[in-house]
Amino acid sequence: MIYHPATCNPARSTAEQEFQTRRAQLIAELARSKLDALIVSFPANTRYLTGFTGSNALVLLWPGGAVLFTDPRYRIQASEETTCKVRVAKGPLFVPLMNAARRNKIRRLGFEGSRLSYETYQLLKENLPLGASLEPVAGLVEAQRMIKSGAEVSLLRRSALTNSEAFRRALAKVRPKMRESDLAAELEYQMRLLGADKPAFETIVTFGPRTALPHARAAANALANNQLLLVDVGASQDGYASDMTRMAFLGKPGGKVKRLYQAVLEAQLAAVSAVRQGVHAERVDRVARRVLRARKLEQAFVHSSGHGLGLEIHEPPRLGKGDKTVLQAGMVITIEPGAYIEGFGGVRIEDTVVVTSTGCEVLTPASKELLIL
Amino acid sequence: MIYHPATCNPARSTAEQEFQTRRAQLIAELARSKLDALIVSFPANTRYLTGFTGSNALVLLWPGGAVLFTDPRYRIQASEETTCKVRVAKGPLFVPLMNAARRNKIRRLGFEGSRLSYETYQLLKENLPLGASLEPVAGLVEAQRMIKSGAEVSLLRRSALTNSEAFRRALAKVRPKMRESDLAAELEYQMRLLGADKPAFETIVTFGPRTALPHARAAANALANNQLLLVDVGASQDGYASDMTRMAFLGKPGGKVKRLYQAVLEAQLAAVSAVRQGVHAERVDRVARRVLRARKLEQAFVHSSGHGLGLEIHEPPRLGKGDKTVLQAGMVITIEPGAYIEGFGGVRIEDTVVVTSTGCEVLTPASKELLIL
Repeated sequence: MIYHPATCNPARSTAEQEFQTRRAQLIAELARSKLDALIVSFPANTRYLTGFTGSNALVLLWPGGAVLFTDPRYRIQASEETTCKVRVAKGPLFVPLMNAARRNKIRRLGFEGSRLSYETYQLLKENLPLGASLEPVAGLVEAQRMIKSGAEVSLLRRSALTNSEAFRRALAKVRPKMRESDLAAELEYQMRLLGADKPAFETIVTFGPRTALPHARAAANALANNQLLLVDVGASQDGYASDMTRMAFLGKPGGKVKRLYQAVLEAQLAAVSAVRQGVHAERVDRVARRVLRARKLEQAFVHSSGHGLGLEIHEPPRLGKGDKTVLQAGMVITIEPGAYIEGFGGVRIEDTVVVTSTGCEVLTPASKELLIL
Repeated sequence: MIYHPATCNPARSTAEQEFQTRRAQLIAELARSKLDALIVSFPANTRYLTGFTGSNALVLLWPGGAVLFTDPRYRIQASEETTCKVRVAKGPLFVPLMNAARRNKIRRLGFEGSRLSYETYQLLKENLPLGASLEPVAGLVEAQRMIKSGAEVSLLRRSALTNSEAFRRALAKVRPKMRESDLAAELEYQMRLLGADKPAFETIVTFGPRTALPHARAAANALANNQLLLVDVGASQDGYASDMTRMAFLGKPGGKVKRLYQAVLEAQLAAVSAVRQGVHAERVDRVARRVLRARKLEQAFVHSSGHGLGLEIHEPPRLGKGDKTVLQAGMVITIEPGAYIEGFGGVRIEDTVVVTSTGCEVLTPASKELLIL
């Protein structure tokens, strides 16, 4: 592979008008933060604001306009992907960016403090116009990205449909002695054939007692009869992530498996029912936890109940203790309680849902019955 | 997928002794840089120094020792993957790290300036022991990582073999009307079945005139008769990357394709022949460029001739103008000249090689003849 990687993946279904609205909304936010301008450097954020998918980009936004800076490799791609004003420059992009800040007499210049390296910050500081100051800001674009537009929900829905169909096709190929890593390969192959760019995260496939390890990566161990299968899989399509967990059983499940499954399913359904605009993120988690507590499984639920997703697989909010984010219509979140019993096995059931004013819409259509193979 | 991602991929073939040697070598380097200690935060670097593959880690190294800091999710994994001293802590890891620095009376504390965010730097500064100072360092671990050990070369060789075999199996399935993205999916599926963790980079597959776009991503266009195919593919196996480009032709290639192919092949062979310990990185690039100049193809060669690889797909050195790195035995680099003619097509041929005292060993066994399908 050549030294300069590049991608070209325009989310063309998101109209250009929308990118303009996003930039205008962020610019309005700058005034509230007492900033004259913002430097955006994090790739998911520059993509969100301009549609540009190249790997090297800075965006300068201020009430007078917005400019995307990139290098000559991306000249054609930038002109195809964005109608934002583009400046193509060789060498470090903060040099032309600071020149633009100087020309536009910008004084209070915000930057993404958790996204920019110390080294780049030093270079920015050295090139700062006389009388101007650099102000770290946290999560400004990320806060805006939490609420998805109709076009974004469409992209997320499509990614979830690709993912569900890949799951259906791959599960049809499960047979005894298949390795976890083979099923993961099959899932990723099918999603690719269906239009995904890549997996949204490292596909999790575990069999038997290994289902009790919530973070295990797919390994070389083979599927045996009378084993649980856990599949946690997501596609990335046109940049947007999907995320779903389903369980299957090879053979006839015994009472303990059925009870564990039923408990997690009830927790999951209760949590989904608790989702609607106006509810705190942590409340949804509490609802799931309460169901599992009633089954003496509270200690077996060792992670939070979900997370936001969009251009990244993990975005705010977090459905866990202490997250007071008020859910709003247009937020897209996972609902994924689980219960894990060491040496026996674990169950997790996960949907991706869009928050609405009256509840939520589930984007992951696959059945939540325990799939018997 | 759960909010806390994790991986568990011990490169067990690299003996623990080797990690100790790496840390000792880095500690010796600290004295030369007039540092008392170094904070290592970049994941490929913490993995290189300890073997630990978790996503949340800091390493503090000083002449008195080395400690790996991670969070409770990774307690078991860390104990399995490393014999380095481990401290498990909740919350931000720089807090226990700074406490260790204080206890060990460290004054000049280096950190990876290009790898640490501005925000984390501020937190480090606020927690700095009285009388201590923070010093940005650039590329210290990366410089050490340039020279691969025997164990690392074995891992790179295995990754390259997986990649070559995946290429062979996937190419056997090529048929007219197959889409670029289908062939990319097939390549990635085969490497997964053969033991790769994932692709080392976004697989590049282009057909016909699109082979002239060196960075194009695999798209939905279908293969027709009398078309060139370009495949640039790499696996990541036990963390180590492979990288190879091969060309095929569906049908009977005409004179122009044959001449273009022959020119790039001669440039590639000349560049491979120029590799040996003691030669400057940029010289290898010059040799490839000279061959293409003689064929009036210098303007068609729009990228550098190669790059180092290892735990990352792109590592120093860069085989291009201005890189004065002296090649040393144990460096692993790609050799990948290309020539691209807009509207017609392009050719790139790429091997991965290990530098030796007398020349190099090619790790990518696939034939470099134009493959006729």
